Amino acid sequence: MKKADVKELILSAKKAKGLGWEEIASKIGMSPVWTTSVCLGMNSAPKEKADMLVALLALPEEASAVIQECPNKIWEQAVPTDPAIYRLYEIVGVYGETAKELIHEKFGDGIMSAIDFEMTIEKKENPKGDRVVVTLDGKFLQYRAW
Amino acid sequence: MKKADVKELILSAKKAKGLGWEEIASKIGMSPVWTTSVCLGMNSAPKEKADMLVALLALPEEASAVIQECPNKIWEQAVPTDPAIYRLYEIVGVYGETAKELIHEKFGDGIMSAIDFEMTIEKKENPKGDRVVVTLDGKFLQYRAW
Amino acid sequence: MKKADVKELILSAKKAKGLGWEEIASKIGMSPVWTTSVCLGMNSAPKEKADMLVALLALPEEASAVIQECPNKIWEQAVPTDPAIYRLYEIVGVYGETAKELIHEKFGDGIMSAIDFEMTIEKKENPKGDRVVVTLDGKFLQYRAW
Amino acid sequence: MKKADVKELILSAKKAKGLGWEEIASKIGMSPVWTTSVCLGMNSAPKEKADMLVALLALPEEASAVIQECPNKIWEQAVPTDPAIYRLYEIVGVYGETAKELIHEKFGDGIMSAIDFEMTIEKKENPKGDRVVVTLDGKFLQYRAW
Amino acid sequence: MKKADVKELILSAKKAKGLGWEEIASKIGMSPVWTTSVCLGMNSAPKEKADMLVALLALPEEASAVIQECPNKIWEQAVPTDPAIYRLYEIVGVYGETAKELIHEKFGDGIMSAIDFEMTIEKKENPKGDRVVVTLDGKFLQYRAW
Amino acid sequence: MKKADVKELILSAKKAKGLGWEEIASKIGMSPVWTTSVCLGMNSAPKEKADMLVALLALPEEASAVIQECPNKIWEQAVPTDPAIYRLYEIVGVYGETAKELIHEKFGDGIMSAIDFEMTIEKKENPKGDRVVVTLDGKFLQYRAW
Amino acid sequence: MKKADVKELILSAKKAKGLGWEEIASKIGMSPVWTTSVCLGMNSAPKEKADMLVALLALPEEASAVIQECPNKIWEQAVPTDPAIYRLYEIVGVYGETAKELIHEKFGDGIMSAIDFEMTIEKKENPKGDRVVVTLDGKFLQYRAW
Amino acid sequence: MKKADVKELILSAKKAKGLGWEEIASKIGMSPVWTTSVCLGMNSAPKEKADMLVALLALPEEASAVIQECPNKIWEQAVPTDPAIYRLYEIVGVYGETAKELIHEKFGDGIMSAIDFEMTIEKKENPKGDRVVVTLDGKFLQYRAW
Amino acid sequence: MKKADVKELILSAKKAKGLGWEEIASKIGMSPVWTTSVCLGMNSAPKEKADMLVALLALPEEASAVIQECPNKIWEQAVPTDPAIYRLYEIVGVYGETAKELIHEKFGDGIMSAIDFEMTIEKKENPKGDRVVVTLDGKFLQYRAW
Amino acid sequence: MKKADVKELILSAKKAKGLGWEEIASKIGMSPVWTTSVCLGMNSAPKEKADMLVALLALPEEASAVIQECPNKIWEQAVPTDPAIYRLYEIVGVYGETAKELIHEKFGDGIMSAIDFEMTIEKKENPKGDRVVVTLDGKFLQYRAW
Repeated sequence: MKKADVKELILSAKKAKGLGWEEIASKIGMSPVWTTSVCLGMNSAPKEKADMLVALLALPEEASAVIQECPNKIWEQAVPTDPAIYRLYEIVGVYGETAKELIHEKFGDGIMSAIDFEMTIEKKENPKGDRVVVTLDGKFLQYRAW
Repeated sequence: MKKADVKELILSAKKAKGLGWEEIASKIGMSPVWTTSVCLGMNSAPKEKADMLVALLALPEEASAVIQECPNKIWEQAVPTDPAIYRLYEIVGVYGETAKELIHEKFGDGIMSAIDFEMTIEKKENPKGDRVVVTLDGKFLQYRAW
Repeated sequence: MKKADVKELILSAKKAKGLGWEEIASKIGMSPVWTTSVCLGMNSAPKEKADMLVALLALPEEASAVIQECPNKIWEQAVPTDPAIYRLYEIVGVYGETAKELIHEKFGDGIMSAIDFEMTIEKKENPKGDRVVVTLDGKFLQYRAW
Repeated sequence: MKKADVKELILSAKKAKGLGWEEIASKIGMSPVWTTSVCLGMNSAPKEKADMLVALLALPEEASAVIQECPNKIWEQAVPTDPAIYRLYEIVGVYGETAKELIHEKFGDGIMSAIDFEMTIEKKENPKGDRVVVTLDGKFLQYRAW
Repeated sequence: MKKADVKELILSAKKAKGLGWEEIASKIGMSPVWTTSVCLGMNSAPKEKADMLVALLALPEEASAVIQECPNKIWEQAVPTDPAIYRLYEIVGVYGETAKELIHEKFGDGIMSAIDFEMTIEKKENPKGDRVVVTLDGKFLQYRAW
Repeated sequence: MKKADVKELILSAKKAKGLGWEEIASKIGMSPVWTTSVCLGMNSAPKEKADMLVALLALPEEASAVIQECPNKIWEQAVPTDPAIYRLYEIVGVYGETAKELIHEKFGDGIMSAIDFEMTIEKKENPKGDRVVVTLDGKFLQYRAW
Repeated sequence: MKKADVKELILSAKKAKGLGWEEIASKIGMSPVWTTSVCLGMNSAPKEKADMLVALLALPEEASAVIQECPNKIWEQAVPTDPAIYRLYEIVGVYGETAKELIHEKFGDGIMSAIDFEMTIEKKENPKGDRVVVTLDGKFLQYRAW
Repeated sequence: MKKADVKELILSAKKAKGLGWEEIASKIGMSPVWTTSVCLGMNSAPKEKADMLVALLALPEEASAVIQECPNKIWEQAVPTDPAIYRLYEIVGVYGETAKELIHEKFGDGIMSAIDFEMTIEKKENPKGDRVVVTLDGKFLQYRAW
Repeated sequence: MKKADVKELILSAKKAKGLGWEEIASKIGMSPVWTTSVCLGMNSAPKEKADMLVALLALPEEASAVIQECPNKIWEQAVPTDPAIYRLYEIVGVYGETAKELIHEKFGDGIMSAIDFEMTIEKKENPKGDRVVVTLDGKFLQYRAW
Repeated sequence: MKKADVKELILSAKKAKGLGWEEIASKIGMSPVWTTSVCLGMNSAPKEKADMLVALLALPEEASAVIQECPNKIWEQAVPTDPAIYRLYEIVGVYGETAKELIHEKFGDGIMSAIDFEMTIEKKENPKGDRVVVTLDGKFLQYRAW
């Protein structure tokens, strides 16, 4: 049993039980983005949370160990085609140099970590059309001089 | 005179005058991300703001018209190599499918616009290491059925 | 059951029943382009239309839920090889910059949405050779300054 | 003098004279899309129209011959990054197979020509947001069996 | 049953019956290049010819409908590796610009159609070594000005 | 002085003198395809022919040595974008496997040489539309078993 | 049964019988490089040699016909990753232009054939470390002028 | 002054003096392949040989230091297009796996070095057509187990 | 049975027995990096060590021969996406030219072998955060002049 | 003045003064790898060290500010071709998965930082051939669960 198998099992169980990602996240006491990424196989969970997922979704017992494994984070499309994902890629292309300038101005030479990192996705209601608000929150890492 | 020329002029004037992006943005009454992206040639400014930039940075007069032009948004590296930009790309790779799932769960079938879109970059102080907080805020666009 | 499975079922049923895409579209009260794209797995349908497709084509009941799912819009050939599709790609290559110029001239800095979007494909009879007329109709989205 | 040089001269003259593409097209009695593509160096013009462009924009005399030359239609980005052009590319990706199905259903095995081809770009006013309407009109070419 | 399945069936039947492509083509009254391309799944045949192929090669009855379907012309190697095919690719690379110059000189701005197109492959005996003679014969298509 | 410089000189002289490729070829007693490819820098000429080209086009004397040099045959677009050249590429994609089958059937295991090779491009008049006829004529090379 | 199936059968039989490539080659009276390439599916063998391979390795009878078929020479890695193969690729990169210069100096404008071609791989003992000696021997092919 | 500048100087001097690569190599007492690769900027020479090249070709004095520098071995075409170089690439593609098998059989797990490496290119006269003989001679390097 | 099959068997056995890579390495008397790379199919082991692995992990007997085979070292992602591996790739990108400069300064023109090569990965405890220490140790190979 | 200009100035001054990287590093009191990477434009230096470099190498005064700027870390070859750099890339390909396994075993789910990172390159003398020892030392960063 591999991450991809567990992902399939989770997606089936989620559909069968009529659960949403936010509901699953709330039941295991974690955030929706992290929980979803674990279920899709792009993050590992600590044993306690993995066991809760297995219980909540009635997965086979061995799924817990698989959920705890360090995933191999592979994406096959260097440039994603799905429009919902491509727009994020486009933002990196259009605003990447801008982000670099502002990070350097505020923090000095370094980067925002993608490892010591949190992310949220929220809905902001708006009469002119609701808005998606994505927040990326990563530790600043300074280049070391040695 | 083209966008790339004006970008060079702005970077030189900024360095010579010892100005920061936040300061420039504040002086023309716009946000730092938008202002920086205009200066780097990845967005166009309305005449009023373009004139203010020209005055503030003592650019040649014709620069204003160039700043108002619709840019040709080209990036040459499909996968960016600079670590500060790559980490953003990596986040799209690792969390893209997760974002898609959560947007669909909260809004239905559609995407976050990268056009009707705002972005901020903030510093969050933290004794364990300051954090970079990037906020993406785009209008939800629903797929039309016809 | 996944989008790809339902696509196969639809193509088989369509052939077995001798139905055309225009006929299917007409029976569910939607346009041919949208209906075809739903059947090929590149768009999701609302429940009512999904149920009508299932009934019309005598698909298994669970196909309706799959047709309602948000698809993962993936195409594997960055440059398509099939001549019928390549010619569309070539038009984007040859006339893309022209389209950009004219959209900016008529609307200002922004784009034609590919999400709030409709498309038709018609046959125009002509004694010198019939013509294919493809119409793209998308909402203009203006870049936001903030 | 090459196509790229003439393109630069045309863009400068157009800006200096405050002309729009539609106005230029109207003055030489041709459509805006074709005229713009000629000016950008992606199509050749017959002598009469080339001379009119040279007169209208006060270009150097030898520009007329260059405008009449068969262009080398090269685009460097297999996947365009500018959002206004990318959305057209995305439409080919999402609806390419659909277009192929409908062309085959209406016409038989063959393609829409990108050579014996016309294109228009129009603005359709709409209280919910104006719309861009792009029309592609190409001769149907049937595969020959021999 | 798909084009790829029918291709396999045809190749097996051809080997079992000891038939050559020229013989098959002659028996259905068509040219060898067109016939081979139909059998390999890269062209569609009219019903009459498809039925003749099915009869000649004793294929299952449903193969005829598949042979009549419009194929999805996909090749996976942008640069082919097999030496027999690569040499054709190399000729396009070395002589492509030359062909463009001569077509424009003889016909004006336009292209040779790859759709309204015929091709032959012949053996020319020669004491210094036999020669392969490939003839491409496509309709000239002139760019339309509108 | 390099091949690219001589190519520019030849194109200028050809335009200034109002010569066509066929006329140039005829004046040096060679075929149009070979002559054009030499002038574009994709083949080398023997001294006698190089000198005739220099005389005919009034090129600087040292151009003759350059025309005799073995060229470095480089093309930068693995998949050509110009439609006149792309159609040739497309023919290789669609009919490459067919050509391979027929060459093997007629000659055994081997290839058509692209070195010991000739090519012609002719115009065939036709009331339904003139046709471009391209002939490739290369020595068959058999794989050696050793 | 295809080339890939026969390759698997040969590799199994070779291992089971404890045979080496040199031994197999010697038993069918051919060179090791050619024999190995035939067994790996990258060359075809004449009937006599194919039958000898089938007998020697006790392959199923129909394998002989497959071994005689013209292979489709496909390699999937444009840049090979295995170090033993990459070093050969690197030599082409580092010494390719040198080889071209020396071939032209010794032979005139043309190439070394990869079809009318032989290759050996030998071990040269050396107290400082044994050496691999690869010899490529191909017919010189001169570009034809016509 | 860089390697590319010295290469240009060497090619000019070689042409002006009417020298061949073999003659140059012989005058500095080294092999033709190594000498040519040094002159083309793909290898460094020891001081003595660099000085001899400078003297022989009457290069400016500072060229000697440049010839002694460690080159940055860069090639821009992952798949070379020039036919003389492509054929070498093709041989790696067709015979790479074969070479790997035979090296492993003769030497064990390891590779032929491309660094501790020599190469010759010879002409072998043959009434049926002269042959190019390329010899690669590299030290066998065994994988270390630790 | 192939390398990939044995890798799967080893990973399963390792999990079932609760063994770590360091423990396995220690039990067969080899280093952890080498042992892991053998188990993952990227190196071959001598018979003695292969037999010890088979015994330790209770693999089927034929696995030993497979572990002794020379592997085909293939990686499919030219640019790895997993962050743990990408960071190593990034280090090559950022510090590659620096490493080249320093190797040349200390050793002369040549390279660090990746074949006669050892590697360790250690944990260095540190109150500010533990550190990963990777050591690469390869024989210097000097370019040969001949 | 940009990073690339300063790099050129430094390389010239270094050659003119006969300094080595280790000597330069020692004179500014930093490590050779970091110092070299700063000089090559791949890292920024604090003001004190930048001023020391300017003084030591007699660079123009404004070079100090450029040396302090945050660099844009771009490498153009996704797969490096120079053998000295390629071998490092190859090590990432061959041992990347191994490194990932061992880092996870020793530290848990996370990565070695390429930002909070140090590197050394040493020469280890050895009678069988000197060895290059490269040490990478980066902080372990654990994936955050939130």
